[in-house]
Amino acid sequence: MSSSLPRAAIPPAITELTVDHEWLTVTWSDGPASRFPALWLRDNLPEGRHAPEGQRTFDIATLPAYIELGDAVLNDDGRLAVTFQPEGLTAIFEPDWLRGHDLSAAARAARRRRPTLWDAGLQERLPEQPWQEAAEGGPGLLRFLRNLDRCGLAILRGGPAEPETVFEAVSWFGYVRETNYGRLFDVVSLEAPSNLAFTGLALGLHTDNPYRDPVPGLQLLHCLEASAEGGESLAVDGFAVAERLRAEAPQDFALLARHAVPFRYLDRKAGVDLSARAPLIELDDEGQVVALRYNNRSAAPFDLPAEVLPEFYRAYRRFGRLLHEAGQRVAFRLAPGDLFAVDNRRVLHGRTGYGGGFGGRRRLQGCYADKDGLRSRLAILEAELEGA
Amino acid sequence: MSSSLPRAAIPPAITELTVDHEWLTVTWSDGPASRFPALWLRDNLPEGRHAPEGQRTFDIATLPAYIELGDAVLNDDGRLAVTFQPEGLTAIFEPDWLRGHDLSAAARAARRRRPTLWDAGLQERLPEQPWQEAAEGGPGLLRFLRNLDRCGLAILRGGPAEPETVFEAVSWFGYVRETNYGRLFDVVSLEAPSNLAFTGLALGLHTDNPYRDPVPGLQLLHCLEASAEGGESLAVDGFAVAERLRAEAPQDFALLARHAVPFRYLDRKAGVDLSARAPLIELDDEGQVVALRYNNRSAAPFDLPAEVLPEFYRAYRRFGRLLHEAGQRVAFRLAPGDLFAVDNRRVLHGRTGYGGGFGGRRRLQGCYADKDGLRSRLAILEAELEGA
Repeated sequence: MSSSLPRAAIPPAITELTVDHEWLTVTWSDGPASRFPALWLRDNLPEGRHAPEGQRTFDIATLPAYIELGDAVLNDDGRLAVTFQPEGLTAIFEPDWLRGHDLSAAARAARRRRPTLWDAGLQERLPEQPWQEAAEGGPGLLRFLRNLDRCGLAILRGGPAEPETVFEAVSWFGYVRETNYGRLFDVVSLEAPSNLAFTGLALGLHTDNPYRDPVPGLQLLHCLEASAEGGESLAVDGFAVAERLRAEAPQDFALLARHAVPFRYLDRKAGVDLSARAPLIELDDEGQVVALRYNNRSAAPFDLPAEVLPEFYRAYRRFGRLLHEAGQRVAFRLAPGDLFAVDNRRVLHGRTGYGGGFGGRRRLQGCYADKDGLRSRLAILEAELEGA
Repeated sequence: MSSSLPRAAIPPAITELTVDHEWLTVTWSDGPASRFPALWLRDNLPEGRHAPEGQRTFDIATLPAYIELGDAVLNDDGRLAVTFQPEGLTAIFEPDWLRGHDLSAAARAARRRRPTLWDAGLQERLPEQPWQEAAEGGPGLLRFLRNLDRCGLAILRGGPAEPETVFEAVSWFGYVRETNYGRLFDVVSLEAPSNLAFTGLALGLHTDNPYRDPVPGLQLLHCLEASAEGGESLAVDGFAVAERLRAEAPQDFALLARHAVPFRYLDRKAGVDLSARAPLIELDDEGQVVALRYNNRSAAPFDLPAEVLPEFYRAYRRFGRLLHEAGQRVAFRLAPGDLFAVDNRRVLHGRTGYGGGFGGRRRLQGCYADKDGLRSRLAILEAELEGA
């Protein structure tokens, strides 16, 4: 599994075993000990799966009400023979497998995916590469997928400037998420801001479709046309800004993570009324930021207790200010044939303003996809190319 | 919005207004009062949206640092004119809109979607109807979508027994979610259990693809062939069972909601390695159950602190036992042409056992879809047909 701890060059061996009814304690040749509950071991019996990491063949409901360890023996080949009672069942566990599933806090933390947070400094080392490199698969594709997974952002340069090229990029790792906007949507920008107050400001930073359930995990935008005067694309690492908020104003961070707010997109003529309630900052069970929604256009009236709203708005406004700080964003121009992919639950995108009164024009084609395919393909490529 | 409070036959009028810098208090002709923060009103300015419930045209970051109310006046037409300072901006609010967005705990709770929980008692009133009724759209389709939304389960009888018919049902409300299993997958069951211990037991209850991010929100299964000896389809309302767990063993419920566990599906030959960490019971910010994952086959080794595991397994096993109780499930037979749709984040599905040594056979075609389309179409139909 791609998120597992890297194996040591020489796998540590088991030097000592202790069995105490419901617990197995294993001491390793390089020092630490690992403790495993008997029921956890029984639930993860190698013989109970179609393959070492394959599908389990029994339901938890079929196990005896009480399970404890009988005996545990270290075989000559270094593997562990464990007997479970009352079943009298003996199973063989590989030391590598046990070590890879150590349940200590440090081992568990090391197994988690950690995003590479970034700010405007990323401008000097934008995660970009030639289209052809990714299109060839292998290490070039691995690089593209890893950029997108770790940075939430990846750019390909100099691909075909043909319609529907964006589908080709999706086919490298996953599937198009079709929505009411179609499998493919055209983004044609005429540089005529409807509100002059916004001119020159880096506004409009947002994540797409927070009113959708589930929110699309990835957005890919492919440039078909761009005039020289067109504005630049902007991107902001929402996870990095959320971590700034957590550090600088922990109460504000907690408020945005604590309360869900409604989002809505209504277009009666098109027969569409999408709505969802979700937090602006979404945490997992260990407190890590896993998703972010920010979209002034589709934020519906916040449906929170009246007394919570003043402090919630304080937090929301602070978060909005941090997201729009110049030091958080990168800017880049898309030429015809270029492709820009973002993690839509993490990276906000937008446009720069444009001055001088000259009209620019650009035409993009976009589509949505999901992250499961990305991570699956990445894990497979890592295993193939790096033995991960 | 479909989740709004039903409007009173005679809309209540505003009888009194109080302005106190950052707060507006409105007293209604039918008794209660509503309090609204100034900034919330300013953020939801009708002029700040393309339409009453349309997209907002400004970003929160563009508002003045401090906003308070100047004056609030009840016009002769019953509408409210509110002035914001320091901008000196006056906006008109409709009493109906304010009432519909009342921020009291009772009004907020009434706006939430509540599932209709069920157990084996649903067997007497299965949410089923003729295929043709739903296919005609209008009230028949509304009924199908509402069954699926509220019960998490809907059955259509007597549709075409042609391949790809399942796509027609999806087209009524949404879009197919393509995955590595394809846009369409065939489910061919040969009645030959590999483990006789399971024969006759209602095992195999599960939700699909918990290793996917995002998990498919809906599954549709359409029957092409079924022999008389084939087992029955089973369904269990996971939300109802979760609520039983919350009532009977609140600590167990809390443990399953508190901790995320890993799920994985690995098939190296097919180039697929899907994995996700998520809780078995997922709650929203108000403590309501919003998603459930239960799948013994793809549950990876629980990656929790060793000391948490014994109590976590106690909770997991209790939940598993409750899910498999006969009193929780409904059973039904699918004939060729029948279609069965489930909310895959709520309702577990499985098969009955089959005895007597007779081989049955059935062939289903299935696909995944998402709930946003379902709820959008439902909201539009409710507005059209019921003026909701």
